[in-house]
Amino acid sequence: MSADEAATMFHSGMTVGMSGFTKAGDCKALPDALAQRAREEGLQLTVITGASLGNDNDGLMAEAGLLARRMPFQADPVLRREINAGRVMFMDQHLSETVEQLRCGSLPPVDVAIVEAVAIREDGSIVPTTSVGNTASFVQQAGKVIVELNLAMPLALEGMHDIYIPGERPRRQPIPLTSVSERIGSTAISVDPQRIAAIVITNSVDSPSSNLPPDAETQAIARHVVDFFSSEVSAGRLTPALLPLQAGIGTIANAVLHGLLESSFSGMTMYSEVLQDSTFELLDSGQFTFASASSITLSAEMNRKFLDNVERYASRLVLRPQEISNHPEIVRRLGIIGINTALEFDIYGNVNSTHVGGTHMMNGIGGSGDFARNAHLSIFVTKSVAKNGAISSVVPMVTHVDHTEHDVDIVATEWGLADLRGLAPRERAALIIERCVHPEYRDMLRSYHARACAAGGHTPHLLAEAFEWHQRYAATGTMLEKVAEPA
Amino acid sequence: MSADEAATMFHSGMTVGMSGFTKAGDCKALPDALAQRAREEGLQLTVITGASLGNDNDGLMAEAGLLARRMPFQADPVLRREINAGRVMFMDQHLSETVEQLRCGSLPPVDVAIVEAVAIREDGSIVPTTSVGNTASFVQQAGKVIVELNLAMPLALEGMHDIYIPGERPRRQPIPLTSVSERIGSTAISVDPQRIAAIVITNSVDSPSSNLPPDAETQAIARHVVDFFSSEVSAGRLTPALLPLQAGIGTIANAVLHGLLESSFSGMTMYSEVLQDSTFELLDSGQFTFASASSITLSAEMNRKFLDNVERYASRLVLRPQEISNHPEIVRRLGIIGINTALEFDIYGNVNSTHVGGTHMMNGIGGSGDFARNAHLSIFVTKSVAKNGAISSVVPMVTHVDHTEHDVDIVATEWGLADLRGLAPRERAALIIERCVHPEYRDMLRSYHARACAAGGHTPHLLAEAFEWHQRYAATGTMLEKVAEPA
Repeated sequence: MSADEAATMFHSGMTVGMSGFTKAGDCKALPDALAQRAREEGLQLTVITGASLGNDNDGLMAEAGLLARRMPFQADPVLRREINAGRVMFMDQHLSETVEQLRCGSLPPVDVAIVEAVAIREDGSIVPTTSVGNTASFVQQAGKVIVELNLAMPLALEGMHDIYIPGERPRRQPIPLTSVSERIGSTAISVDPQRIAAIVITNSVDSPSSNLPPDAETQAIARHVVDFFSSEVSAGRLTPALLPLQAGIGTIANAVLHGLLESSFSGMTMYSEVLQDSTFELLDSGQFTFASASSITLSAEMNRKFLDNVERYASRLVLRPQEISNHPEIVRRLGIIGINTALEFDIYGNVNSTHVGGTHMMNGIGGSGDFARNAHLSIFVTKSVAKNGAISSVVPMVTHVDHTEHDVDIVATEWGLADLRGLAPRERAALIIERCVHPEYRDMLRSYHARACAAGGHTPHLLAEAFEWHQRYAATGTMLEKVAEPA
Repeated sequence: MSADEAATMFHSGMTVGMSGFTKAGDCKALPDALAQRAREEGLQLTVITGASLGNDNDGLMAEAGLLARRMPFQADPVLRREINAGRVMFMDQHLSETVEQLRCGSLPPVDVAIVEAVAIREDGSIVPTTSVGNTASFVQQAGKVIVELNLAMPLALEGMHDIYIPGERPRRQPIPLTSVSERIGSTAISVDPQRIAAIVITNSVDSPSSNLPPDAETQAIARHVVDFFSSEVSAGRLTPALLPLQAGIGTIANAVLHGLLESSFSGMTMYSEVLQDSTFELLDSGQFTFASASSITLSAEMNRKFLDNVERYASRLVLRPQEISNHPEIVRRLGIIGINTALEFDIYGNVNSTHVGGTHMMNGIGGSGDFARNAHLSIFVTKSVAKNGAISSVVPMVTHVDHTEHDVDIVATEWGLADLRGLAPRERAALIIERCVHPEYRDMLRSYHARACAAGGHTPHLLAEAFEWHQRYAATGTMLEKVAEPA
């Protein structure tokens, strides 16, 4: 069926589950066809995905007015604009939780699932492409399933997936996964062929990752983290294989993993939600023995290499539903080392991952909470300043909290790393200020913290000043007290 | 050995693990003897417990200057004063995580464990009293174990405990618990008798719970929650047995459970960290068939009744380590309904459970995060105002975040209940303001939210005004814009 014909099956008010996780394995044809119907006929849908989509899909759908409601994650500038204007109702969710909420009725059920596949087997079961995301649960729940069969994806992907869906509560059994490389499910998504309402043929690869190459600052952050791992190994708290690594999507977390190439660690594994270029570099170097995730999101060059050589990697990779890649049960059991990116953090180690200025959504919390809460070590990284120093990433108080200080063990910027384990808030603040803050902002934070401590409390703050830096930036263009002379 | 003699085994800098969880099963003699050594010789220790202690133990130890460092929870006015003055370094922790951090070396190891017991078996294994808390892991790790054998506790308590400690990571197996009443461990804490350094005899019961009786407001909150459960049953999302219930320590959560006595629900179970009077009322009414927790904290009257009739309840109760009662793996697997108390929440559903005015510690986060993050339903309750209306419990922005809006499904005050599932922040705010806010504050919040929305954003706020209410309270004694005339 053509995408346009398949798009006629939808009507306003429906909830649609789409494949796609961090630009990988998203649908290539239906989003555009649905956007066309929105432009022509005002079609409006609730769209749930795994995570962000590529191919400008979110932007196209948002611009056309198709999206009444969108969850659980996005990373598109047009959709972001619509969300922040209050025109798209966005639910920012822990990525392990969306299908749990669908299953127990906390969210309305998925009417139609649209999923990209590399193959449909004779029994009707669907073989996903470069991500699993929430696809298996969407297919399980949807009355109708539309499959986009993508001819640009190599058939060698078949066998790489491990589809497992937890049972009904309260009689659910333990998820039997006890190691990174274990397989606990099937290699395809089973579905009654009667529910496959359409098959649409496509032929285009995923959008490339938008990660920037490592720079002096991200390399310095990586060095601090690698040095910290070395000291943990020396102290006997980690082995040279470390513990299974998770790294958030994006330039900085990817750069930290890239930094492991220079390390002497070996026998390492990854248990993450997304595999980026650095994972493949570390598989190639032999330092990674296995990588488990829910998606593969690569630069154009690395993607070509991967798709041409799937067989070379197949025995060392597995793609799981995001509910399993991010499941608190598994994260806690394996003892993950989680490395995620902060937009800003405060002197006590609370992290804002999502809201610019406390109000405007950037992308979403993604899987960072799934990992940070239950990790063996929860590490957050960021450059110490943004906008050429006009914004300090370390502030008196974050304007939005995604991760509370309970869930943050380590913070690092290019200036250094603060190991917050076992410390009370006043101690955390002293360490963060000395280790992580850009020198231009250090005295300002020392002054804030000293005056707050004098006023007392377990977590001292001066409420009248807590957001003064953000307000100053909004008013003057810099968080610094004296505006610098123009260069 | 006398407590004074046992107290000579300690020296400054040691880390001590003590039994005790929400005033239940705490040590009755050693804390006092150690406080005496602090007064006389300046002894200073790191003290880790299950949760709060009774018998003024925390106050005695804090007043004497014994506590250099204290974790993971407390509820004592003297200790609170010392924490907020910065004289005791307090680590406020998720109650399921403390022993995980001890085990992996993120916290320094326990040197000595001091644990209350009802019996020591011939093989040396220790039978706890009214709580398990972190005791089993303290005993496992400590070089020396001091047992307080409490003659006031009935021997019938033996058999009520289920001791299970998860294995080492990364090869840990699933925790095999799949129902509330299942037993997966042993009935006593095994220990090499060589490590039992002293046995001290005591003879006094636990401190009574400080819960206040239900009043008109807590009864109204209970009615809203029970009505909500009824509507969930009608919608087919719950059965009349509901799902395993968790309720936080304290007057309001206890009152909500008490409200279930008036309901038609039956076959209910509890999977919580603490069992309060309401649990026993619901066991007596036959509506609860089983209750699992880490401690039993009762009023003086209910405690006498329980201790005199342990046999009557024994087949319907189990006490587990707090790591298991609160474990994310189990909370998610069973699909808990979590009911916890908020100090304040904001218009978007972010919850402050701990910090008065954003700075001063009240008690600690306790187990609320363990349950709220992974619950089937995460419910937070509070009265809409405090201090005779001078403080609104619903504010523009909470001054401290313990639970982000991702982890909060339902909020309720005596005015009503807001079901936030499936809603975006702007929608959450509208519902919270109309349903939960005291009428005196409703217009102020409507105005704040409308003006914030006009300024834009996914989570609209006006940073210059976000904490104005708290600042006004500090300056004028009320959050209301016009100070009321004195009565």
